[in-house]
Amino acid sequence: MPLTLTPLQGYPLVKSGDDLVDLTVQALSVSGLTLLPGDVLVFAQKIVSKAEGRRVNLATITPSPRAQELAHQIEKDPRLVELILRESRTVLRTRPGTIVVEHRLGFVCANAGIDHSNVAGEGTAEQEWVLLLPEDPDASAQRLRDGLQAHFGVPIGVLIIDSHGRAWRLGTVGVAIGLAGLPALVDLRGKPDLFGYRLRITQIGAADELAAAASLVMGQAAEGTPVVHVRGFPYPLRESSLAELIRPADQDMFR
Amino acid sequence: MPLTLTPLQGYPLVKSGDDLVDLTVQALSVSGLTLLPGDVLVFAQKIVSKAEGRRVNLATITPSPRAQELAHQIEKDPRLVELILRESRTVLRTRPGTIVVEHRLGFVCANAGIDHSNVAGEGTAEQEWVLLLPEDPDASAQRLRDGLQAHFGVPIGVLIIDSHGRAWRLGTVGVAIGLAGLPALVDLRGKPDLFGYRLRITQIGAADELAAAASLVMGQAAEGTPVVHVRGFPYPLRESSLAELIRPADQDMFR
Repeated sequence: MPLTLTPLQGYPLVKSGDDLVDLTVQALSVSGLTLLPGDVLVFAQKIVSKAEGRRVNLATITPSPRAQELAHQIEKDPRLVELILRESRTVLRTRPGTIVVEHRLGFVCANAGIDHSNVAGEGTAEQEWVLLLPEDPDASAQRLRDGLQAHFGVPIGVLIIDSHGRAWRLGTVGVAIGLAGLPALVDLRGKPDLFGYRLRITQIGAADELAAAASLVMGQAAEGTPVVHVRGFPYPLRESSLAELIRPADQDMFR
Repeated sequence: MPLTLTPLQGYPLVKSGDDLVDLTVQALSVSGLTLLPGDVLVFAQKIVSKAEGRRVNLATITPSPRAQELAHQIEKDPRLVELILRESRTVLRTRPGTIVVEHRLGFVCANAGIDHSNVAGEGTAEQEWVLLLPEDPDASAQRLRDGLQAHFGVPIGVLIIDSHGRAWRLGTVGVAIGLAGLPALVDLRGKPDLFGYRLRITQIGAADELAAAASLVMGQAAEGTPVVHVRGFPYPLRESSLAELIRPADQDMFR
């Protein structure tokens, strides 16, 4: 069975308080799509954050002395640095413009995933507004899943993705930051290989592979297609959480 | 337009010297697929290496003193360690069973991408055989592209992928190790965002996102579908090389 990823058409600009289940049901209809058992819907983090009111006006933020010092070192807005530190457990590396952190959600990323683009203000300069990641992306995914399953009456998966840079490769790729109902990790350890006589040691980052695929069709372009319908995800749906994808600190060679 | 990834059916086990263009033409036919302008074919590294005769019998390898010492430290076959070192520019980290290296091809990966599974011997124990990455995966991709374009008479892209672990996340994901005719990196820097008033700083690792997508449908399972047909790749085809995806050492914060 092929894997087919279709960006939904006609998705409106999302505002705080919008019901993404309603918007998605409408956009699926506009796109001539329905949901079948085993389908997955992939949401860009940005619209989930917006709907959940995670926009912050930098004018309301008072940077701590630590944020001021770090902001000076790396030439970044101290109020933004303050937010990055609040959203993080640990700072791993810094360089001009970038703070690589362990996010409070457990993963490592640049600038705590705080997005500076595509955030419109209301009567204030756009530069003053930034967007934090959802408070609990697994829970956000679960709410979307519950709402969509209630509407369509079939079991589906929901994945929330962001774009991350990589330590050694250029270019961002889509990665999972929250999910419900599809496996984050697929464990092939112990399965025989093609010749039947060697045990495998592979775990597949299936949710991250799907995130990258969906990111490819979302693009980062001005058109903006923040929700992607997926048919043919090749693994059985099951309960899962992002925690499956987080490498424990004691297995981390690159802190 | 949807992005559709279809694993080819009926692909035979590949042996040294096999012509992958011929095998792929046959498998496309069996799968009821043809190639249209802009399509991409994704090949698992393993079959490219096998066809190119990159299998090595460990019994023929004499480990250097350095390989012996490292092998002792990390409890690994000294002959395999010798091959890993030969295929690498630098060792970044070691831990039991794993050597993270900068491969001679430029990217960072575990154990120089040398594969121990699915490599059958001929009259010798399977454990004695390993598979190196292709000598020059971009050139391999270009040969496949030339052959397939000559057969089908349309411009296509070819991508060769492997599965890599990540520094901070569990699970492997598909990544590009060689390509021809499709952009490795898509540069959106300078493009306006959705609101038209902020310049973007994003480069997208498009070939890696496609690699992850294709890896998802190839699976790592016993069935083995080592070639994936892609329709709807959302960026214009162009000449490219893997080098676009390699982060320069002076931008690397995690050596």
